[in-house]
Amino acid sequence: MYSFKSDYSEGAHPRILKALMETNFEQADGYGEDPYTWEAIQLLKQRIACSDADIHFISGGTQTNLIAMAAFLRPHEAVIAPFSGHVAVHEAGAIEATGHKVITTEGKKGKLRPADVEQVLHKHNDEHMVKPRLVYISNSTEIGTIYNRAELTALSQYCRDRDLLLFIDGARLGAALTAAQNDLSLEDIARLTDAFYIGGTKNGALLGEALIIRTGSLQEDFRFHLKQRGALLAKGRLLGIQFRELFSDDLFFELARHANRLAQKIQLALGEAGVSFLVPSPSNQIFPILPNDIIKELLQRYSFHIWDQVSAERSVIRLITSWATKEEAVERFIFDLKRLL
Amino acid sequence: MYSFKSDYSEGAHPRILKALMETNFEQADGYGEDPYTWEAIQLLKQRIACSDADIHFISGGTQTNLIAMAAFLRPHEAVIAPFSGHVAVHEAGAIEATGHKVITTEGKKGKLRPADVEQVLHKHNDEHMVKPRLVYISNSTEIGTIYNRAELTALSQYCRDRDLLLFIDGARLGAALTAAQNDLSLEDIARLTDAFYIGGTKNGALLGEALIIRTGSLQEDFRFHLKQRGALLAKGRLLGIQFRELFSDDLFFELARHANRLAQKIQLALGEAGVSFLVPSPSNQIFPILPNDIIKELLQRYSFHIWDQVSAERSVIRLITSWATKEEAVERFIFDLKRLL
Amino acid sequence: MYSFKSDYSEGAHPRILKALMETNFEQADGYGEDPYTWEAIQLLKQRIACSDADIHFISGGTQTNLIAMAAFLRPHEAVIAPFSGHVAVHEAGAIEATGHKVITTEGKKGKLRPADVEQVLHKHNDEHMVKPRLVYISNSTEIGTIYNRAELTALSQYCRDRDLLLFIDGARLGAALTAAQNDLSLEDIARLTDAFYIGGTKNGALLGEALIIRTGSLQEDFRFHLKQRGALLAKGRLLGIQFRELFSDDLFFELARHANRLAQKIQLALGEAGVSFLVPSPSNQIFPILPNDIIKELLQRYSFHIWDQVSAERSVIRLITSWATKEEAVERFIFDLKRLL
Amino acid sequence: MYSFKSDYSEGAHPRILKALMETNFEQADGYGEDPYTWEAIQLLKQRIACSDADIHFISGGTQTNLIAMAAFLRPHEAVIAPFSGHVAVHEAGAIEATGHKVITTEGKKGKLRPADVEQVLHKHNDEHMVKPRLVYISNSTEIGTIYNRAELTALSQYCRDRDLLLFIDGARLGAALTAAQNDLSLEDIARLTDAFYIGGTKNGALLGEALIIRTGSLQEDFRFHLKQRGALLAKGRLLGIQFRELFSDDLFFELARHANRLAQKIQLALGEAGVSFLVPSPSNQIFPILPNDIIKELLQRYSFHIWDQVSAERSVIRLITSWATKEEAVERFIFDLKRLL
Repeated sequence: MYSFKSDYSEGAHPRILKALMETNFEQADGYGEDPYTWEAIQLLKQRIACSDADIHFISGGTQTNLIAMAAFLRPHEAVIAPFSGHVAVHEAGAIEATGHKVITTEGKKGKLRPADVEQVLHKHNDEHMVKPRLVYISNSTEIGTIYNRAELTALSQYCRDRDLLLFIDGARLGAALTAAQNDLSLEDIARLTDAFYIGGTKNGALLGEALIIRTGSLQEDFRFHLKQRGALLAKGRLLGIQFRELFSDDLFFELARHANRLAQKIQLALGEAGVSFLVPSPSNQIFPILPNDIIKELLQRYSFHIWDQVSAERSVIRLITSWATKEEAVERFIFDLKRLL
Repeated sequence: MYSFKSDYSEGAHPRILKALMETNFEQADGYGEDPYTWEAIQLLKQRIACSDADIHFISGGTQTNLIAMAAFLRPHEAVIAPFSGHVAVHEAGAIEATGHKVITTEGKKGKLRPADVEQVLHKHNDEHMVKPRLVYISNSTEIGTIYNRAELTALSQYCRDRDLLLFIDGARLGAALTAAQNDLSLEDIARLTDAFYIGGTKNGALLGEALIIRTGSLQEDFRFHLKQRGALLAKGRLLGIQFRELFSDDLFFELARHANRLAQKIQLALGEAGVSFLVPSPSNQIFPILPNDIIKELLQRYSFHIWDQVSAERSVIRLITSWATKEEAVERFIFDLKRLL
Repeated sequence: MYSFKSDYSEGAHPRILKALMETNFEQADGYGEDPYTWEAIQLLKQRIACSDADIHFISGGTQTNLIAMAAFLRPHEAVIAPFSGHVAVHEAGAIEATGHKVITTEGKKGKLRPADVEQVLHKHNDEHMVKPRLVYISNSTEIGTIYNRAELTALSQYCRDRDLLLFIDGARLGAALTAAQNDLSLEDIARLTDAFYIGGTKNGALLGEALIIRTGSLQEDFRFHLKQRGALLAKGRLLGIQFRELFSDDLFFELARHANRLAQKIQLALGEAGVSFLVPSPSNQIFPILPNDIIKELLQRYSFHIWDQVSAERSVIRLITSWATKEEAVERFIFDLKRLL
Repeated sequence: MYSFKSDYSEGAHPRILKALMETNFEQADGYGEDPYTWEAIQLLKQRIACSDADIHFISGGTQTNLIAMAAFLRPHEAVIAPFSGHVAVHEAGAIEATGHKVITTEGKKGKLRPADVEQVLHKHNDEHMVKPRLVYISNSTEIGTIYNRAELTALSQYCRDRDLLLFIDGARLGAALTAAQNDLSLEDIARLTDAFYIGGTKNGALLGEALIIRTGSLQEDFRFHLKQRGALLAKGRLLGIQFRELFSDDLFFELARHANRLAQKIQLALGEAGVSFLVPSPSNQIFPILPNDIIKELLQRYSFHIWDQVSAERSVIRLITSWATKEEAVERFIFDLKRLL
């Protein structure tokens, strides 16, 4: 049984484990005040070309999202997210548990355009409703699509003109930035948003996301929020060491490229075999539409998520590859599936 | 410079790193639904002799405390804690951020007795005040003291008679249960409380606490709360593997014994040299009272926390040892300090 | 300028003011522990034929909704409401501010059917999403429609079978229960729900809603929640006296009948004149669709709310009548409008 | 049986009821956007000599406190209050329910001095603890004492120097400002604080407190917070009309003076008869210490609150007078008590 269920099925990239071993007996201060974390922060500041950003390492994506929004928003302010946004659906009400409404809007292919946000603003015009304040998007999105520079620039400009904050959930930012069609850089992301995070968990780390707060007014006292929500790890070094390793050279992007390449290999092969897709995805999540009996056969040898039903006979499945996905497994999967088609 | 500042200055015990390496490329389901976590849970159930306990692994202590209390309490219910309780002081208002008041009461040597709780109940008698509902204690306490069986039994009985929940913060439960004077077992702890946690972070793990929920009515839907507060790690295996390793034999207790032995070695030597202490501690945190000029000298070669001032000339310092503390470092510290006295 | 903007444009029915005058200098205990409140509770218990209901008087609808849901739900539990539900739109995120997500679903003519709820349950099937727990409906709805007995019985049964709570926002329950087509009684409402409230503010009181909690497990400690959310009025008598007056005879229903009759008079006249409506409403809120130039003319002499645009030339307006609406005003409005058509 | 239990035992001053009657059938916009509320705001702005203050009328004290603090504070910020502060004890955890810790400090005679606040600041010096941000005091205090100008000026200066907000709970501000020893004016109060409220409920209104927000940065979007917490009354006129009446001439102060005079009459008479007091109070709450058997006798004819036990034989009682307290009742009470002494 080989799993294409997620990009967090294995442990960490061996270089990360090696770095943990090598530093293991060095004594360091707790709570992120260790030298490894400091180094990782410097490396990231260089990558985003922004020396006055505030950078924090946090265990997971839901925790990062909830702490950022709880810290950035006043009680009456709300988040705007696409229907498919992770915060809107799959975080068990984490944002609402901090007191903030998540307003959903349709979007297109998992992405928000200025017009989608405009619709929300249009309806929210007095104090009997919440005040929309932060636009949440994911890149890559929950269905594998990515924003290009023109799209992100337009959304960013729109938000700035209306005093809205723009936040990117980058759980799979590595996959987005190394996709074939991508024309955005980490620098662009930093320049066009108020805050965003770079996902480590789904790209080779044991755990860890790097939250980058660009806008000065959002930076104040942020460590209080980390502590208050239980995110200030005693051994903060665990996060710092991993991000130091991922960004000390090109490792972070190499891992994402590997994941993308293998997903695209499947998508290409299946496309050639006449399989259609929920949406064309340039990244490491793909969504082929297959007959239910073939899906049943595949599940004998592979595990993956059944995303949605499209008819009585056909369903969309989700296949995810990662830094750890083996080329042979992908080849065997293509072979097995083609035989069934 | 050698640090006696905390028991989380180093990484993880080598056996834990080895276990992470060995399992690294095994694929496993996410969010704690992996076989390592399952095994760790079975091992813990055996240790506490309670097969129907609900066990969850969580990244850190503050997060464990806040999720447990948010899940266990209704909005008007409050926590009772000693003045020195971690939740009352050093968690940046984490409990209040979930909506619950923490009522503090004096206690004795960092511990609560039925009479301390009684004082709180006496004052809280109508709906104009919060309703005290959960008694929070730490073992070992924030000043290194421990509960004995008689004390914990009395408190447990008192709580049960008054429909109060009893919760133990076990960030340093290993140190408590392996202290020379201790007469409590893990089984006793489970039997006498409604819920408690076993700290891994301060006893050899990279991170991780095992929350054990004994009382059935508190178990329902707990994973929702984990998810909502950002505590359901995608690679939950990271926590499961560590606890499997700590409890597959006596490792957890060995590490704690080591820490205790070295702290007691310092305490004994200093006591013989005429140094007095804030409180006699049987565990891995000790609190000698020293002249300020000697403290200043020590800080040239050792790092530690200055706990409190006792007079213009003298202060209490806190020395903490851990599973990773080196015998030589302890011996040199004793030697250096004796020379200064 | 005459207002059809709301049913809270005037003060209170004269009998209520008279009752306040007559009791003014009687001394009474505070916080709802006065004899007037006690009497009002007894009267309501008789009306709903349920002696073990828990009844509380609260200043307003948003406050009632938020306190009830905060008290009834655990942190991970969510509310299901129609898109048009007051809690989903027009309470500035009051429910979310207590930590709970409001899941919206389409419904039909402002009402929820079992199938609408089923859709939500179908999608919420694990701990990565909130747990739907309380179904919120309004009667009459935000667009004036009402539930009939068959509809409410079906929804109630559906909820009970799935361990969902059913809650009715009765801000305009008087209007619903006195509508021509209505076949529900207060007794039915109490029998078929877990909790609901009877609106006083929009039916002749200065302020005040009567929250009725039928289900025993939801009643415990409710006064703590009132106090904690700032709803326990020092002079609770103010609410008790008003509800005693409204329910000491048929006053509550008389006032609602008056409001309905005048709205229906307009609806009938306009319908006869060929005007169409957003939805046929049997209660005191009606929604005619009119040409924009006529609306503009009307606004010279009447104030009302423009509900929505239906085309470049036509809009829906909302007209609301109340216990205080004058027959002459209604007649003049019909006359004026007919002239313009 | 005559009650000295509270200053909210009766309804409203007759002039207030009369104003409600006279305006009853005037149509007005809801939610505080009526002309009565507008007038009341203008009158208050003149009284405090501050035209750019933001003024809102809210139903009760707990609600005012919780909305103000929830609106003013970021999630990690805390309130400092005296042990006896209403928010710290008698609001059922209302502040904590909005997520904020209330740190208590000793104070003197119910009042806070800069040194009391300093103690709190001294201990709160990093992100492992909450950040103290708002100093909450009451005037008159919960034990009847009042701040003089020197005291309030010192505290105000201290707060401004340390970027702390100063907030006065003025549930009994009328009693404070009309006490014999008082040297503070409403203008002073406004000048020396960031926000405060003027209590109507305990000084002649049916309900209502006027929250005055002086500091500009705290004013933004405040109506959203009112709505979100359920405080925006549909018939906001009810509050506006009452405050217009109280402040259209000297009525507010006359009523408070009446209450003070009668309490002082009792205090003086009892003092002359050798009775001692918990604390000398210049306002409408007094705290005589009496033998338990005399208290028992008094309770046959009067109701009042037993505040505290001072010994096996003696207790402190609390007597409160109000705008409605009758001179004859006071005289009879003095007569009855003297006879018993």
